Amino acid sequence: MFEQLGLIGCGLMGGSFALAAKRAGLVRRVVGYSKSPSTTERARQLGVIDVEAPSALLAASGADLVLLAVPVAATESTFKAIRHLLTPGMLVIDVGSTKRDVVDAARRALKTEVGVFVPCHPITGREVAGVENADPDLYAGRQVIITPIERTLTQKIEQATALWRALGCRVTQMSPDAHDAAFAAVSHLPHLIAFALMQGITRQPRGADYLALAGPGFRDFSRIAAADPQMWRDVLLANREELARQTALFRGALDGLEQLIATGQIDALEQAITEASHARATWRMTPGQK
Amino acid sequence: MFEQLGLIGCGLMGGSFALAAKRAGLVRRVVGYSKSPSTTERARQLGVIDVEAPSALLAASGADLVLLAVPVAATESTFKAIRHLLTPGMLVIDVGSTKRDVVDAARRALKTEVGVFVPCHPITGREVAGVENADPDLYAGRQVIITPIERTLTQKIEQATALWRALGCRVTQMSPDAHDAAFAAVSHLPHLIAFALMQGITRQPRGADYLALAGPGFRDFSRIAAADPQMWRDVLLANREELARQTALFRGALDGLEQLIATGQIDALEQAITEASHARATWRMTPGQK
Repeated sequence: MFEQLGLIGCGLMGGSFALAAKRAGLVRRVVGYSKSPSTTERARQLGVIDVEAPSALLAASGADLVLLAVPVAATESTFKAIRHLLTPGMLVIDVGSTKRDVVDAARRALKTEVGVFVPCHPITGREVAGVENADPDLYAGRQVIITPIERTLTQKIEQATALWRALGCRVTQMSPDAHDAAFAAVSHLPHLIAFALMQGITRQPRGADYLALAGPGFRDFSRIAAADPQMWRDVLLANREELARQTALFRGALDGLEQLIATGQIDALEQAITEASHARATWRMTPGQK
Repeated sequence: MFEQLGLIGCGLMGGSFALAAKRAGLVRRVVGYSKSPSTTERARQLGVIDVEAPSALLAASGADLVLLAVPVAATESTFKAIRHLLTPGMLVIDVGSTKRDVVDAARRALKTEVGVFVPCHPITGREVAGVENADPDLYAGRQVIITPIERTLTQKIEQATALWRALGCRVTQMSPDAHDAAFAAVSHLPHLIAFALMQGITRQPRGADYLALAGPGFRDFSRIAAADPQMWRDVLLANREELARQTALFRGALDGLEQLIATGQIDALEQAITEASHARATWRMTPGQK
C-alpha cells in the first residue's frame, strides 16, 4: 500500500506502528528519526526501522506515508521541519492524545498544505515507554479517532481510515473539540488523578510501607500512573481547559461522597456508590476492541 | 483439618473461601447462612455449601471453624447472634476490609470469649459480587493481613495462619490501626476516587458518549468502581477518619498538579509526573502474590 514510511518519533507508539504496518504488508520500508540518536540507532538494531535518518526532514524525504509520533507539544516544530518536502501524494498522520492543539499547530505550520494531514488518536498505550517495548499488536482491536478539519482532503481521510482498518482498528470520526472534551473525561483526568494518588501516598512518611501492602485493585487502578512523563506533561497542558472542567466535576462528586461519609448518611452513600458501581459494571469497551 | 465450616455470608468472599477450603481438603463439610434465603439456597445449588442453615446461630452450631463474610457493619450483630455457641475449641475468622471497627465489635459482642476470634483481611476481591462468582482461586497467591489484639489466643493465630497458608496465601501480622491507616491509602481512597470519577462522568449530559470512547487505560483504572455498594458503604464509613486523612493528602497533590498546569510550569509538571511515574513503575505487588 505504501512504499516508504517516514517515522518521526521511534518510541512505543511509533515503533509499534512501524512493526504492525510492516507485518501487515502495508509499508515496504521504514525510515526513522528520533530526537535522540541513540533511540534511532536502537530502533534500527531492533528491526523497528530499516534506515536511520539524521533529521525529521530526511525521515520524511521520499516517504508516501509520514507518521508523527512525538509528544504533542513537538507537533508544530516537527511540521515546520518537514513542510518543504510535503507533496500532494503524501499522507501524513499523527497519534497524539489531544487534537485541538495538534490541528492548530498543523494549520499554522502547514498552511495551504494542511489538507494532506489527517489527525488521528489511536486509543491504546502501555505503561512502559520506549522502542524496546514496541509491540506489533499494540493497535490491533483498538479504536482510532480521526478528527479532520474542513481543509482535510477527503481522499486522505479515506486513505487513513483504510490504513487503520488494515491494522485491525475500528475508526470513528469527530471534531477535534468533541474529541478533547471526551478524552479529558475518560483519559486525561484519570491520568491526572493517578499521578496525584501516587504523589499523595509516596510523600507521606509511611508511604513505602503502605505500598508494600497494596493488592490487585491498586495495581489496576494505578497502572496508568506509570505513563510516560513527557508525553503526559504535554497532554495535560494542551488540554488544560477541558481538563479543568472535568476535574471540577470530579471534585464535586468527591465532595458529595465525602460529605455523605462525614455525616454518616448510610442510605444516601449506598445509593451514590450503587449509581457509580452500576455505571461501571454495565460499561463495555466499544465492540470491536479487545 | 476442620470438620465443619460455619459460613456466615455466602457471597463472593465467603463462597470462594468455602470452595477453596474444600478443594484443599481443609474442611469436610460447609454449613452456610446468608441473610437472603435465596442466596443460601443458590449457594447450596451451586455446591458452595453442603447444608443450608436458617440462621447465623445454626450455621455456627457444631462448627469448629466459623467464617464471617458479611459487610463489616454487620459484624457486631453477627457476633451477638452466635456468641452463645462459641466454644474454646472453635476458630472464628473474618474477611473484612477494615479492622479497627471489626475488633471493636468483637470486643463488645464476644467479651471474654474474644480470644477465639482472629481478625483477617485477605487482599483480594473482584468487581463482581455474589455467590455465582465464587471462585476457588480467589485467595491463591494473595496476601492476608492478620490483626490480632492482646486477648487473641496465640494458638488461634497459629491456626488461622496455617489455614491461610494452606490456601496459598502469604500471611502478615500488624495492628488493626496500622492496617486501617495503610488500606485507607492503597485501597479505600482509590475506591472512593473511582466512585467519584464514575459519578462525575455519568452525571454530565454527554457522559454516555464519552464513556463509549474510553479505552484500556480507563478500563483498568475504573474497574474497582464496579465493587459491591453495600460492602464499600460500610468500609468507607468504618474507616472514615483515616480515609479523610488520605483524601486530604490526595487533594493536596491534585491541587499542586492543577496549579502547575494552570500556570504552564512545564518543567515542574514533568518533574512531578516523573516522580509519580517512577514510583508506580518500580512498585511490585509483594512477592508471593500473583
